[in-house]
Amino acid sequence: MTQTPVALTVAVDAMSGDHGTTVCVEGALKALVRHPELTLLLVGRAECLTSAFDGLADDCRRRLRIVDAREVVAMDEAPREAIRRKKDSSLRRALDLVASGEARACVSAGNTGALMGCAHFVLGTVPGVQRAAIVAAIPTLRGHTFLLDLGANAQATAEQLLQFGWMGTVVAAADNPAKRPRVGLLNIGHEDIKGTPLVKAAHELMRASALDYAGYVEGDEIMSGAVDVVVTDGFTGNVALKAMEGLARMIVGALREEFTVNTGRKLGALAALPALRAVRHRLDSRRYNGASMVGLNGVVIKSHGGADATAFGYAVERAVVEARSDVPATIHGVLGTKAS
Amino acid sequence: MTQTPVALTVAVDAMSGDHGTTVCVEGALKALVRHPELTLLLVGRAECLTSAFDGLADDCRRRLRIVDAREVVAMDEAPREAIRRKKDSSLRRALDLVASGEARACVSAGNTGALMGCAHFVLGTVPGVQRAAIVAAIPTLRGHTFLLDLGANAQATAEQLLQFGWMGTVVAAADNPAKRPRVGLLNIGHEDIKGTPLVKAAHELMRASALDYAGYVEGDEIMSGAVDVVVTDGFTGNVALKAMEGLARMIVGALREEFTVNTGRKLGALAALPALRAVRHRLDSRRYNGASMVGLNGVVIKSHGGADATAFGYAVERAVVEARSDVPATIHGVLGTKAS
Repeated sequence: MTQTPVALTVAVDAMSGDHGTTVCVEGALKALVRHPELTLLLVGRAECLTSAFDGLADDCRRRLRIVDAREVVAMDEAPREAIRRKKDSSLRRALDLVASGEARACVSAGNTGALMGCAHFVLGTVPGVQRAAIVAAIPTLRGHTFLLDLGANAQATAEQLLQFGWMGTVVAAADNPAKRPRVGLLNIGHEDIKGTPLVKAAHELMRASALDYAGYVEGDEIMSGAVDVVVTDGFTGNVALKAMEGLARMIVGALREEFTVNTGRKLGALAALPALRAVRHRLDSRRYNGASMVGLNGVVIKSHGGADATAFGYAVERAVVEARSDVPATIHGVLGTKAS
Repeated sequence: MTQTPVALTVAVDAMSGDHGTTVCVEGALKALVRHPELTLLLVGRAECLTSAFDGLADDCRRRLRIVDAREVVAMDEAPREAIRRKKDSSLRRALDLVASGEARACVSAGNTGALMGCAHFVLGTVPGVQRAAIVAAIPTLRGHTFLLDLGANAQATAEQLLQFGWMGTVVAAADNPAKRPRVGLLNIGHEDIKGTPLVKAAHELMRASALDYAGYVEGDEIMSGAVDVVVTDGFTGNVALKAMEGLARMIVGALREEFTVNTGRKLGALAALPALRAVRHRLDSRRYNGASMVGLNGVVIKSHGGADATAFGYAVERAVVEARSDVPATIHGVLGTKAS
């Protein structure tokens, strides 16, 4: 079964992130070129964005629009301040376009707290969803696993963990509609007696649910490919994700040091380059850029603040995937009825 | 200031782990050769252990004794059963030797739950210590960081997290007496408003304490070398450690695959071997084998169940370090008085 590409519009906060407009625009245009069904709304100071049309093919030009927004939310701005005072910011306007239905999804590399706060304020949570969560794909040797919550909430109830299981299932299914996602619950052992009272309560709820529930998984199974979705609270998920980022950075640092010790080592690096590049490509964090804020009435994708154009392009791709399968409506279908 | 090596005795559960006696004995003998002040008690079935003397230098023979124990605690045996029924097990006898003062420390690659359970039963916690914890060194680019709790307790109170800070400090100081250890508290952000109520309460306690407290650290800072000790509850610590193990395994798997795709890649691997070996050595998990169960009335070191002889040898080294600086007495000095 092949899907017919349906026209869809994505709003991009083009003033966000550590590297600003150039990177956002360049990344967004990569996605525009790749997806003929995509219409792109670049949100930000119009005078900074018009150059986006330069050298663009006619087909792409027709699918590109600029939406003027005069303000920028700073990377360290408090969510409350961003909501109250930055009503004409690129971040806010991009969310407004989703709320009004002019866009099906939005992407921002802006500060996570402000984006989450504004998204809650502008879009609200899907009826039946107790808490929105942040979910992202983590690479495995043969694919990837979706991990949530990555820090939208520092704490969660058992009922909320169950909902995260459903939301993760919807996101994983958007990614690969042919496969019924398997869900695991993060714990410190596989036996029923292991873990906190919270985890045990969530385990019972998941076991009794219609989820394709695989039971407990341990930290090393996040990237073993044992399951498609790993559920945990936002504290644990955030720590696990960052611990992995830290280790990856350390390994890259050690490789760089050891491959530049002397000329022999440098020549060795040259000979090993094809394999090292292949490994880098497989595990490239840029390909996994774009965390989804699920449970909101609209697709909201958070790009890493330090993303380059390639990485930002992948975040826009993520928005296309989730908008195409209408993740918010599917979540409503699953949790809206259950909660009522 | 150089320390004069004081004679010390370490009991080794020589029947434990996935690989059994051969690996335990070989590993323990490595430590015996390296440390002229060390006396080793090999605990297990005498008939399986006498071969340890074969080919050993006289000096080492004099410092080696075999302590007979007839039973073995299985790797999947319930802690309660091990405590009740396996009174003549190698694991239990090794702990008994510490309790009686015949050994200053013990090492086992046996099952974590049984070792922890028996250790609590036989040794008890240091007066003033609310909960024992598991601590291990995590490699960084320029050294290592001690992370605790790694799963002795699924939950912790703020007061217990503060105690973990002190116990981590004592362990880090045993490792490097010249340096006052800096302590960080694991959280999902650096700002005071971030985290759970538990973490915020522990933050206040640590800030008010005499610890050299660096404040919140995030998951990627565990291996950045920013601090010497990272404190968290056993659930989060266990997940973070295993997530890192899983990622390391995945990277090794990807390297192995990419370096064996074809002959060119294999030749590349050959040329890169010195650098790859150097990286492996730096991050070699075997060098970091040996988690310490701190807060007990005796040094108890848990080796990884799958450890090879080299790794098991490092676990015995860890026992030597902690026995030499008498970690339990130091912890009593710090927490025994505070609690009274």
